[in-house]
Amino acid sequence: MKKSALQRVRASYQPKLPKALQGPVKVKYGDATESVANQAEIKELFPHTYGMPVVEFVPDEAPERVEEPFNVGIILSGGQAPGGHNVVSGIFDGLKSLNKENRLYGFLMGPSGFINHQYMELTAGVIKEYRNTGGFDIIGSGRTKLEKPEQFDAGLKILKELDIKALVIIGGDDSNTNAAVLAEYYKNIGAEIQVIGVPKTIDGDLKNEWIETSFGFDTACKVYSEVIGNIQRDCNSAKKYYHFIKLMGRSASHIALECALETQPNICIISEEVQAKRMTLDNIVSYICYVISERAKLGWNFGTVLVPEGLIEFIPSVKSLISELNDVIEEHAEEISEVEELDKLNLIYGYLSPKNADLYKSLPKNIALQLSLDRDSHGNVQVSLIETESLLSTMVEKRLEEMAEAGEYVGTFKAQHHFFGYEGRCADPTNFDADYTYALGYNAAMLINSGLTGYMSSVRNLTDHTENWIPGGIPITMMMNMERRKGEMKPVIQKALVDLHGRPYLKFASMRETIALNTLYQYPGPIQYFGPAEVCDRPSMTLLLEHDKEIY
Amino acid sequence: MKKSALQRVRASYQPKLPKALQGPVKVKYGDATESVANQAEIKELFPHTYGMPVVEFVPDEAPERVEEPFNVGIILSGGQAPGGHNVVSGIFDGLKSLNKENRLYGFLMGPSGFINHQYMELTAGVIKEYRNTGGFDIIGSGRTKLEKPEQFDAGLKILKELDIKALVIIGGDDSNTNAAVLAEYYKNIGAEIQVIGVPKTIDGDLKNEWIETSFGFDTACKVYSEVIGNIQRDCNSAKKYYHFIKLMGRSASHIALECALETQPNICIISEEVQAKRMTLDNIVSYICYVISERAKLGWNFGTVLVPEGLIEFIPSVKSLISELNDVIEEHAEEISEVEELDKLNLIYGYLSPKNADLYKSLPKNIALQLSLDRDSHGNVQVSLIETESLLSTMVEKRLEEMAEAGEYVGTFKAQHHFFGYEGRCADPTNFDADYTYALGYNAAMLINSGLTGYMSSVRNLTDHTENWIPGGIPITMMMNMERRKGEMKPVIQKALVDLHGRPYLKFASMRETIALNTLYQYPGPIQYFGPAEVCDRPSMTLLLEHDKEIY
Repeated sequence: MKKSALQRVRASYQPKLPKALQGPVKVKYGDATESVANQAEIKELFPHTYGMPVVEFVPDEAPERVEEPFNVGIILSGGQAPGGHNVVSGIFDGLKSLNKENRLYGFLMGPSGFINHQYMELTAGVIKEYRNTGGFDIIGSGRTKLEKPEQFDAGLKILKELDIKALVIIGGDDSNTNAAVLAEYYKNIGAEIQVIGVPKTIDGDLKNEWIETSFGFDTACKVYSEVIGNIQRDCNSAKKYYHFIKLMGRSASHIALECALETQPNICIISEEVQAKRMTLDNIVSYICYVISERAKLGWNFGTVLVPEGLIEFIPSVKSLISELNDVIEEHAEEISEVEELDKLNLIYGYLSPKNADLYKSLPKNIALQLSLDRDSHGNVQVSLIETESLLSTMVEKRLEEMAEAGEYVGTFKAQHHFFGYEGRCADPTNFDADYTYALGYNAAMLINSGLTGYMSSVRNLTDHTENWIPGGIPITMMMNMERRKGEMKPVIQKALVDLHGRPYLKFASMRETIALNTLYQYPGPIQYFGPAEVCDRPSMTLLLEHDKEIY
Repeated sequence: MKKSALQRVRASYQPKLPKALQGPVKVKYGDATESVANQAEIKELFPHTYGMPVVEFVPDEAPERVEEPFNVGIILSGGQAPGGHNVVSGIFDGLKSLNKENRLYGFLMGPSGFINHQYMELTAGVIKEYRNTGGFDIIGSGRTKLEKPEQFDAGLKILKELDIKALVIIGGDDSNTNAAVLAEYYKNIGAEIQVIGVPKTIDGDLKNEWIETSFGFDTACKVYSEVIGNIQRDCNSAKKYYHFIKLMGRSASHIALECALETQPNICIISEEVQAKRMTLDNIVSYICYVISERAKLGWNFGTVLVPEGLIEFIPSVKSLISELNDVIEEHAEEISEVEELDKLNLIYGYLSPKNADLYKSLPKNIALQLSLDRDSHGNVQVSLIETESLLSTMVEKRLEEMAEAGEYVGTFKAQHHFFGYEGRCADPTNFDADYTYALGYNAAMLINSGLTGYMSSVRNLTDHTENWIPGGIPITMMMNMERRKGEMKPVIQKALVDLHGRPYLKFASMRETIALNTLYQYPGPIQYFGPAEVCDRPSMTLLLEHDKEIY
């Protein structure tokens, strides 16, 4: 791999560590903890790992211990997020700071490498190639779910073979839930393997009182904001297009919200608001058309609309339609399979209840087809494949034509579509994410050395200077509640949706009318690594607002 | 407009000027020139502006002149390109360096502002807000063609009213051709208005012996390369998708080629090569399938494919089909309009000659519909709307299924699609483009002060240090030849397509097999402004290779 000029220079960046991690540490134990809900059920499911204290690392002025050498394994689980490589190099450096003999193994292509015993040793030479870079390509990632005892047993074999004392799972809420289950399982069978989780996801929905943000959110949002800003500058120069921009983020709208705060588009739809206010697809289309027609009165036939990827599942009426579609299509599968594509639509239409049938008929044909026919292997609609940005613009165009006929709109409407996701998941991490991930990894090594299991690596106080960040560990069970999954109640880490009472959303809501009817685009530009701190080191607006810090 | 942190810091960047422009200048005249072809015809069409010498500016050690004050007007024409604002600020600073009383006016929204007398004065306060920023939003741009005497006369009125001595047109090959026509027209009628062109286009196809590159190409390609690199890192981490990435650039493939040199994708199609080798759509699909199946043998079911936007018009067989489609659809318009969408396809199919009919039938339905029905106001296929990236992936998928059935391919194929264009046209300019555009603008002011008209602002020797760049002017007629446009022979600036004997293409060709069958992605990362020179100041690979410079 030939490195680019930026990568060659960036390789030598030394991520900043919190003061507490700059030398030997000792553990400060907090009080026993409870899960956020369903305490009794979760306690019963995690008899060995429930109720453990929150821990914090503080400098150990006069350590007397000589640390015994040990080995660690890591798994990168699920979608990529910027900074993954620095978690790995942080763990590596943390381990080596404890004992030069410590070894690190990486399981290949996610949990499947663990189950199938595919791994590589991560030596200093390997780590060196990946410091401060984006991607998960150092060992690859995968989406196999690590949740069955036979998988745990299969993995245990290779852990024992490699004399591994602890496994670090770098993943989102599901993967961290599974890390907790695995920790409990190994403790229960007396396997003497510690399991530590690291909070990863660009979606930003793995956060709570103790985990201020998941890593990768900062960088991904900054890449998206860069290109959204560029598109807005184009939009405001050519003054002839509406750009509908869909943004990755499976359910929560954190990414769309953060990008809206960074770039001030004319419209940003927030899924959580749509759900809470029980807005219909028609309501959303009406709102967009209102903004477009008001802007047209000012002579502006251009603008930008941010759409969160998961929107469609948050619209109650569409959710109800999808649910009935699932039933109808399963029930009449044979009949449907026997007719031509467009006849399928008519056939399905006939089987729907009147309310859902109306909505179904109002959808553009290509979207109706996607909803009806593009199913995953479980027969479910693949929501992430629905071209929501095109759905909205098609419906908006139709509505504007009706409004024009009724004399309610005079203007021209031309749309462009964009979807950003893969552009940001593997970007080189910002200084913030580079430091945060390195600290999370280094801290994970300290959690292991302290003999802890079932903990998530936690670094807090992130809106302060790096040296004042607070390293420690949070019992994963503490973040859990019981939720229905595939018809069964399961213990899971509570997902953080956009809080409609939180400052990030309220800030957006406070400026929404102004940025809709004016042209106040902001252009953040590309991520910078070498310039002044206010350009290179500012964390996300979301994080700053959530912690009552000034936006600068 | 609230500026982002980067913009606030970047505003104070002082673009570097060539040494020759750092103080008073005098003109060094070259020999009389000839047009690149059709000398007699072009001489006849440009009796007053043909054959003028190339000029170069050199320092004037002891200027005795006192410069008289004068006013200048500018037009931004056509698609946006990074650096336009610095052309404007360069002109402004150049004018002010000559005489503080000089004034600069900007015509709004492109040539139409000139014709319709919509303008604003560009004062120091306005200019300050736009230094080193992307976009054309300072005065807006537009696509009105400035080519008719009545437009020239209408514009002349406002020029006289504002006491403007010279008009600067910032545009691509067509706009600069029109600048030459306008210069000749004003000289012919004795209007005493100078016209100067500035070479702009991200497409990179306005270049020749004298114009080393058009501005904006460098920045746009670096933005595209950033996101392509990020996608490749994702691709190489998840190892499960083929990403088909279409890149803007109406006809020439310079952008795709530059991005391929920067990022080393597995495949990059070069339109000029397809045309020269008379490759069919089938040939292209076969080549992609060959690479995919070979990679599958190595266990790699992932990769990246770059597709130039204009490809479809360079495939001789598709060009022939489009041409016959145009005739058939015009001839049978009524009959076609009376049937349902899918029946239209069958109807048209029946009217095509056997060879074109076969190709038509082989196309995915949505593409056949786009080719048949999405027409512009002149009845032409809107090639830029054809989803070539999806066309290729659909045909590749089908072919791979056939190959799998025949036992010739074992692998999985899942595609993702991207189109990058608007993401790069208005990005903040790289240091190279910021310096180059500022010099082009400053230099344009000097051309005006020297009394020249019908010249293009030229800054050469761009692969050397900025201070050694060579400022001057090139007679626009010198770059012209006669070409057929809408059935008539017209004098136009020769477009530069990718030269299949040039070093950029040959460099790509030399690595093509290696990067196809290996995974050697490069990840350039985001544009940097503040770091070491090798990261921040390197011009495009294309420019370096064309001038035999080392790639660093």
